[in-house]
Amino acid sequence: MRISQLAQQTDVPVATIKFYLRERLLHEGELTSPTQAQYDESHVRRLQLIRALLGPGGLSVATVRELLNHLDHPPESRHDLLGIAHHAVHRPVGDGLDLEPVHQLIVRWGWQIDEQDHDTPAALADALRGLEIAGFALPQTRLDRYAELMAEVAEVEIADLPIDSLEAAVRYVVLGTVLVEPVLLALRRLAQQDASARRFGAPPRTAD
Amino acid sequence: MRISQLAQQTDVPVATIKFYLRERLLHEGELTSPTQAQYDESHVRRLQLIRALLGPGGLSVATVRELLNHLDHPPESRHDLLGIAHHAVHRPVGDGLDLEPVHQLIVRWGWQIDEQDHDTPAALADALRGLEIAGFALPQTRLDRYAELMAEVAEVEIADLPIDSLEAAVRYVVLGTVLVEPVLLALRRLAQQDASARRFGAPPRTAD
Repeated sequence: MRISQLAQQTDVPVATIKFYLRERLLHEGELTSPTQAQYDESHVRRLQLIRALLGPGGLSVATVRELLNHLDHPPESRHDLLGIAHHAVHRPVGDGLDLEPVHQLIVRWGWQIDEQDHDTPAALADALRGLEIAGFALPQTRLDRYAELMAEVAEVEIADLPIDSLEAAVRYVVLGTVLVEPVLLALRRLAQQDASARRFGAPPRTAD
Repeated sequence: MRISQLAQQTDVPVATIKFYLRERLLHEGELTSPTQAQYDESHVRRLQLIRALLGPGGLSVATVRELLNHLDHPPESRHDLLGIAHHAVHRPVGDGLDLEPVHQLIVRWGWQIDEQDHDTPAALADALRGLEIAGFALPQTRLDRYAELMAEVAEVEIADLPIDSLEAAVRYVVLGTVLVEPVLLALRRLAQQDASARRFGAPPRTAD
């Protein structure tokens, strides 16, 4: 199909498609004349993926390029996938973070964490520091309970990891990490409203 | 104290403090001469809160201004707090979202959700649409399990809401919503590494 048809089918403007081509997020079509290229189903699928990662995933163009590159060139080991996905979605944190309290928590929970991954412990340390400087440090029991519940989340996710195809595993880990995060946060907010309504009362719902 | 001492005590540069003053995130000091103002402990606490919200909380200056305004002028009802916090941290989502599937889920789970809040259902609908267009739609059982676990998270949080002081309740809800999100996401990633290491094996940890 031509670029205008690709735009129509995916609901992505032609100018945006050209931007993705320039940014090397989308692979080139096959040239049928010096000024015209043909696109196929692989371009449709890739465009949908790009939209999902840039939109609800909330990632930058550079991060999406990196993730797509890993999807196209998967690592040898399934376990390495997680490191790649976690590294790609990691947001830079401030300097001078003390990781020792986080290491102590990890030991306390008996978790096996990649020695080479400093990003994820740093993300937790940064988040905990944010709470602390806001005068809102979490009590140990609360943190333990959060860890317990997130371990149950992770357990289900890793148990469902596809093992028959590496490509499927890569998609699962990368997309599961990035795109499920906003699902969990939205669910938490809705569940808070429900818990709050049951505790403090709320106006009755009108019929839908 | 003078602005230079405030900067030293909070580790925030003078230029940044002046920016917060101009942006009305930080209240003015008491003028002691036409060119000099005195600051006190209330400025120290507010600066720490601003840093926490802008840094690990990852919020925009406009959002932080709105949240601080609500902290300074709390609403009448504790239940309204959640709506304010959820609205403030809501990121705009695309047009043409179909909220019906989300409403069906909420009914299925028996959750009481604020009729007036369209942001949070829209955030969930947007996140689910992102998964769908990436070809990664969540099975119903998985979504139900996520909802169950997030309900347990919310249950603990609402049960711990301070009821003796409205100011404490406001801080709890607003900061608990915004600043705990990165904690949960970091915990999920660490727990995934642990679950993955137990399932697929990982290099042995060196002694810390």
